Amino acid sequence: MSDTIWTDVNLLTMTDIGISYGLITDAALVEKDGFISWIGKKNELPDHYVGKIIECSGAYMTPGLIDCHTHLIYGGNRINEFEMRLNGATYEEIAKAGGGILSTVSATRTASEDELVSSALKRLRYLERDGVTTIEIKSGYGLDVENELKMLRAVKQLDEISHADVVATFLGAHALPTEYSDDRDGYIDLIVNEMLPIVSEDKLATAVDGFLENIGFTYSEMERIFSAAKKHGFELKLHAEQLSDLSGAGLAASYNALSADHLEHLSESSMDLMQKSGTVAVLLPGAYYTLKDTKLPPVKSLRKRNIPMAVATDSNPGSSPVLSLKLMINMASTIFGLTPEEALAGVTRNAAKALGLDDRGQLKAGLKADMVLWDISHPAELAYQVGGSPVLSVIKNGTVVYQNI
Amino acid sequence: MSDTIWTDVNLLTMTDIGISYGLITDAALVEKDGFISWIGKKNELPDHYVGKIIECSGAYMTPGLIDCHTHLIYGGNRINEFEMRLNGATYEEIAKAGGGILSTVSATRTASEDELVSSALKRLRYLERDGVTTIEIKSGYGLDVENELKMLRAVKQLDEISHADVVATFLGAHALPTEYSDDRDGYIDLIVNEMLPIVSEDKLATAVDGFLENIGFTYSEMERIFSAAKKHGFELKLHAEQLSDLSGAGLAASYNALSADHLEHLSESSMDLMQKSGTVAVLLPGAYYTLKDTKLPPVKSLRKRNIPMAVATDSNPGSSPVLSLKLMINMASTIFGLTPEEALAGVTRNAAKALGLDDRGQLKAGLKADMVLWDISHPAELAYQVGGSPVLSVIKNGTVVYQNI
Repeated sequence: MSDTIWTDVNLLTMTDIGISYGLITDAALVEKDGFISWIGKKNELPDHYVGKIIECSGAYMTPGLIDCHTHLIYGGNRINEFEMRLNGATYEEIAKAGGGILSTVSATRTASEDELVSSALKRLRYLERDGVTTIEIKSGYGLDVENELKMLRAVKQLDEISHADVVATFLGAHALPTEYSDDRDGYIDLIVNEMLPIVSEDKLATAVDGFLENIGFTYSEMERIFSAAKKHGFELKLHAEQLSDLSGAGLAASYNALSADHLEHLSESSMDLMQKSGTVAVLLPGAYYTLKDTKLPPVKSLRKRNIPMAVATDSNPGSSPVLSLKLMINMASTIFGLTPEEALAGVTRNAAKALGLDDRGQLKAGLKADMVLWDISHPAELAYQVGGSPVLSVIKNGTVVYQNI
Repeated sequence: MSDTIWTDVNLLTMTDIGISYGLITDAALVEKDGFISWIGKKNELPDHYVGKIIECSGAYMTPGLIDCHTHLIYGGNRINEFEMRLNGATYEEIAKAGGGILSTVSATRTASEDELVSSALKRLRYLERDGVTTIEIKSGYGLDVENELKMLRAVKQLDEISHADVVATFLGAHALPTEYSDDRDGYIDLIVNEMLPIVSEDKLATAVDGFLENIGFTYSEMERIFSAAKKHGFELKLHAEQLSDLSGAGLAASYNALSADHLEHLSESSMDLMQKSGTVAVLLPGAYYTLKDTKLPPVKSLRKRNIPMAVATDSNPGSSPVLSLKLMINMASTIFGLTPEEALAGVTRNAAKALGLDDRGQLKAGLKADMVLWDISHPAELAYQVGGSPVLSVIKNGTVVYQNI
């Protein structure tokens, strides 16, 4: 196949070259067979690159966005619960009406694999049109062998039919299913002895995640799961320090986890361990916003320690019904105080890192040709706008998969 | 012209018929010559309506959205200032670098009328694709005769070239221009004796607005302006109680203003007056969010008093760079606690009221055929989603002006 040359473009390469945004103005980017083969100043483009030329008229190009923490696959929805709450219903009334995460578990168990795929695909289309070319999706609403596997197979199906690459994370330890409410150890046994071996053998997920929290799983329960997951060769991730400090991020770091996520209540001692292990801090402003949290994650300390910060939608039906990763760039800046450059790195370079992917997240020769072309006049405009989508086109593996007309 | 019949549709009529959202399920809507001629249950559609039939497959239809408070026309942008702030610059440093509202005034004065139109049109397109069919735009970045008139003529041009109806409000009393910093009365004289007569004579605006605040204009200055504006027959609006309680909303109400806007610091005594006058409370969650305000508008009291609440973007380059009115439905619910139905009424029925327009804002025979068709499964989904745009099509005066494909 011949080259495609994107030219007259301002590249926000997001590489760590000491220049803000890794910016290259008046640039060109050469793509071949789905990969970036050359990048640089337009007037330095070697003569031997010939092929289709795409004029970008001075538009800005970023790496394709990477949403590194979502729960995009689920049965039912929680719209009714959302409306009841705003109409003044108490938590008891909502629970009686069948609200809460367990309502999503029961709707997910009832749904067929195909139903899960088609409802998630609709949500994925919003994210794709908004610039997402890689997305992580967790299981965790099945909570039994059959339904956790069904969710992970649905992720696989989604990966096949969508433009974006879809990466699966196994989150059996999301909540304790009601049938085990008197037998916590029994459920951990189920995860460790039955679920993990099948997920590993069938290659249904690359990482294992959990919810370490007073209303989730304990430190020692997560230790058991992590230690078993490690033996199967899984990467690790953890929902940690969202509602309280239980040293979850420290635990994750001590197991060399890819990421610790949420982190509103993160302590300095856990940060010490994250800094050593290179564990990414995944910040989720959509959940903070929807839950009307008041405790901010320690962004200044994370910055000072050079702990990489990623930003994701946490898209889920209860605490973060978010359908735009671009809006999270704005919320990460406006609510959490990330600079526009940090927020953009959070959905590109550092999001790739949070998924253990070294073939994307930056514009660099040798990496995947996943790109977004934006109708903006300044890089920080991506963080500045509240709503609105200035996407001109989304490019996945070198092919334009979405064009805004 | 023959009829167009929209059928198999769930109508959120937003009329005050005592049913949530004014919902009519399995409905039909007949449009002729840009107006709604019949509305009701599909199986009750009279035989004599014949014409083009548009099947909606159970989608939901709302009135076209109305953005009743914006500053969409301006020169330059404030992206740089936004980025400086997040990079830790002090207000002094930003002011030195030419930030703040006066930087927008100077960029607006420099811009030609056509430049103002073309930059605003780009922003308007985002809002239109998101469902907006009527929008109000204020002057207020010119602050001298020539440039205030230039802004208002730009509004008129926008109205002519856009799908949406664009309504102009004169906001000469937005800020004190530097050349009058030692002569406040001189600037009020200029507004009262020069600007208002021309704006009135040239029919360049329907309403007059002002910014009553410690950093804006005083109660008695606004009284002078309102009293002169009344004589010219203008409708009135006021930016009131955003940063402190200066009884602005009470002043607006005592002049029978259409609306008082912002209202975070609104007092019970001003609400007494608003209740009597029927003045609409326009809530602006985008500015609250962007400025990281902590004082919420008194939604519970407004609700108890049946004061109509509208919701708008306040789209402007400094305190609310918002490009989605749909996102404001979510923010009005999530941040301000409006029910999803109140939030939707805020961008339809009550937004029309805030602009003094009685020919739109509801789905009802005799009103304009301005509608939006949504790909949602529940009315509250419009408030529930954070980002993402489920617009299927936008209909203005009976014509489909935007279709999401």
